[in-house]
Amino acid sequence: MEPLLFYGVPHGCSFGAIVALEWSGCPYRLCRVEMPVQTRGALFSRINPKGKTPALLTETGTLLSESSAILHHLAAGDPARRLVGDQGSPAFDRVNQALAFLNAGFVPMFTPLWAARYMAEDDPARPVLTAFGREHVGKALDQIEAMLEGRAWLGGDARSIADAYFTGVIRWVEHLDAARLADRPRVQALAHRLEDDPAVRFAHAIEAGEDAVGAGGFLGRVTLEDVVGRLAA
Amino acid sequence: MEPLLFYGVPHGCSFGAIVALEWSGCPYRLCRVEMPVQTRGALFSRINPKGKTPALLTETGTLLSESSAILHHLAAGDPARRLVGDQGSPAFDRVNQALAFLNAGFVPMFTPLWAARYMAEDDPARPVLTAFGREHVGKALDQIEAMLEGRAWLGGDARSIADAYFTGVIRWVEHLDAARLADRPRVQALAHRLEDDPAVRFAHAIEAGEDAVGAGGFLGRVTLEDVVGRLAA
Repeated sequence: MEPLLFYGVPHGCSFGAIVALEWSGCPYRLCRVEMPVQTRGALFSRINPKGKTPALLTETGTLLSESSAILHHLAAGDPARRLVGDQGSPAFDRVNQALAFLNAGFVPMFTPLWAARYMAEDDPARPVLTAFGREHVGKALDQIEAMLEGRAWLGGDARSIADAYFTGVIRWVEHLDAARLADRPRVQALAHRLEDDPAVRFAHAIEAGEDAVGAGGFLGRVTLEDVVGRLAA
Repeated sequence: MEPLLFYGVPHGCSFGAIVALEWSGCPYRLCRVEMPVQTRGALFSRINPKGKTPALLTETGTLLSESSAILHHLAAGDPARRLVGDQGSPAFDRVNQALAFLNAGFVPMFTPLWAARYMAEDDPARPVLTAFGREHVGKALDQIEAMLEGRAWLGGDARSIADAYFTGVIRWVEHLDAARLADRPRVQALAHRLEDDPAVRFAHAIEAGEDAVGAGGFLGRVTLEDVVGRLAA
């Protein structure tokens, strides 16, 4: 079976895994998961008990979670390994360093901002968490800006799973009013360039529920009910 | 040249990279970095401009940062790849999933607690960040507890870079009074078992500045001044 990606909407970081799938050229299917209604539900807990997207049902029927692990799996599925390089190579290290920083140093810094967004307006914790989140997202953006000095892509001179992941999370800066992207011109330029990428436009169409035609190996949609039903059988 | 690991004291998450080096059996050297005095200084900014440990000077003279990227590099240096498995294999995926969760879902949740610790006692942000950090560290510990069901190690039936990383960060739970480890018996049992591991005892001795004799490929210490001097030459 082709791998099946469970992607969360709206605003899921799983967006980046759709982009990576398109870039890989390998065949795949997609399953839409509404957040938080479905991610917290009993059906999806069979897919990922942590209630988080992305999740991946691999070619061998194994369930995989965590963006970084899923992106590595997808990149390894391409025999040429163009999106990550070969294990132990300098390219692999560079991509992994960029991906790890995004995954552990950037994305979690939005956690206080997501929490503040859903608090009552007069909750005294709200301004504290908002200020804390903005400070740390801003610092992380400055570090990404420094990383991009003299290189076209996050992992070096070729696009990689780090750039794919970036497409799904950089949009949170504006969505959560976390920082001014214009103050980090290289980060902003990369974000704008990626918005024109066919795989990114495809991922937007998928999220919007439009008829999307990919340039990669997209084989169609599957519903959560169908997948879980088949897993149980 | 053998790889050179820059490890931060006190309480650095780079502790886990020392453990991984010992487990790998490969030759290596260590360079001690005092936090935050040296990590924020001009010398160390030549090693990692982000001012974070661990950092690694690889066999080929490349500087690498980010725990996850460093641990992957060290594991790939062992020809048998016992600590991570081969890229694309189910073992690699399992280890990577556990490591990614620790790195992106657990460790960053301590950020508000570290910040709160250094705030003035009467800072109104302090109790807010403390409560927020405890809530999220607690949730992450519950998820690690669930991951450990039916398995001896975080990545499955063999120890891996995920367990090595765990040794350096699980101690923050107590140090920052973040949660009750006793409420997560599998996590606590793994932490206790690892404390008896020779590599973990070696890493503690290294941090304490004691004469440490490893069972692996430890070749000795280098000072930050020496390394940066040689890099500049």
